[in-house]
Amino acid sequence: MTGEGLFLTFEGIDGSGKSTQARILADTLQSDGYDVILTREPGGSPGAEEIRRLVLEGDPDRWSAETEILLFTAARRDHLERTIAPALAAGKVVICDRFADSTRMYQGLSRGDLRRLVDQLHSLMIGREPDLTLLIDMDPETGLSRAKGRQTAEERFEDFGPDLQRRMRAGFIDLAREHADRFRVIDGNRDVEIVAKDVAAIARAALSKGGR
Amino acid sequence: MTGEGLFLTFEGIDGSGKSTQARILADTLQSDGYDVILTREPGGSPGAEEIRRLVLEGDPDRWSAETEILLFTAARRDHLERTIAPALAAGKVVICDRFADSTRMYQGLSRGDLRRLVDQLHSLMIGREPDLTLLIDMDPETGLSRAKGRQTAEERFEDFGPDLQRRMRAGFIDLAREHADRFRVIDGNRDVEIVAKDVAAIARAALSKGGR
Repeated sequence: MTGEGLFLTFEGIDGSGKSTQARILADTLQSDGYDVILTREPGGSPGAEEIRRLVLEGDPDRWSAETEILLFTAARRDHLERTIAPALAAGKVVICDRFADSTRMYQGLSRGDLRRLVDQLHSLMIGREPDLTLLIDMDPETGLSRAKGRQTAEERFEDFGPDLQRRMRAGFIDLAREHADRFRVIDGNRDVEIVAKDVAAIARAALSKGGR
Repeated sequence: MTGEGLFLTFEGIDGSGKSTQARILADTLQSDGYDVILTREPGGSPGAEEIRRLVLEGDPDRWSAETEILLFTAARRDHLERTIAPALAAGKVVICDRFADSTRMYQGLSRGDLRRLVDQLHSLMIGREPDLTLLIDMDPETGLSRAKGRQTAEERFEDFGPDLQRRMRAGFIDLAREHADRFRVIDGNRDVEIVAKDVAAIARAALSKGGR
């Protein structure tokens, strides 16, 4: 599934500012002349959005963690097939707000025994990793208060409290070390514009390295 | 997930009469005094029925085979957790119209390269096999014409034509040989009452062997 484009993902705890940074980077690279697709998970293709609604609407406890992981993997497979892979094959830059690393953290950390299962299912059914993952690292308390300020009915993932938020932050840092080849950690506790400048520099370096 | 009850599945090509036999057996064992749950796949629990609708309604080509397998596995996991496992733990007889063997056949045979993937995903996320599987073996042409006579909008699986129906029948026979420990093959080309008598005898033998 490796195309000629660049597959770039944003990860981070809720309220880290990664969605804002993903949008700014998409605009910046478009201004640079790149053909850019901005997408997000869960969702990102019509089928995956339907699965997203199935998981995120209604009683949060109606699915077990295992069933939820299967549904997210089904959505990711559809997103990859219908949106990401065709765009990469056409040489585009794909910027995705969350991808498999979020499942590793949210499902894998909230029930620690599931982390291995998440990885096995990913190898079996998805396989593809991003070319570059930008982890927007953010103080857990600040992130939580920012996330709470904009909470919608659907965003039940934000409802985890300060302890889990701290564990998530630490988990993302560990994950970045584990996959040091594709992760870059960016300090998100600064002005949006300054963070955006760092993000753009890293993305442009990756794009020029790729010969684009 | 092994409980004290008996987990019994019916398999066979479309139009084999397995759903009718499942219903008759449920009545028979209830008359014998057993506590019986009659269920079916895809579906069998509220969450799994929602996933069933997602897969079977709408454009049949909107999901790839791989995404479809993931969605069916998510439905099966929910069905197992919410309906089958609790009933078995309570000592009930669970009769299920189709289970993982149908995925092995329908997804695995219609795209031959997926059979291994179906098995790997089953081991990883489901694990449980039935205690007893009754394969209602039926002449493919007869089955097809019976299935066509009652076709509903949702039953797109029936739309496979005589060649695939023949391959399915042969595939089920191979599967029964592969899992000879739990499969019993029953000639479905006979009167419903005669088939039902065979089915009841096999099920009662399994129940008495289990010390019930």
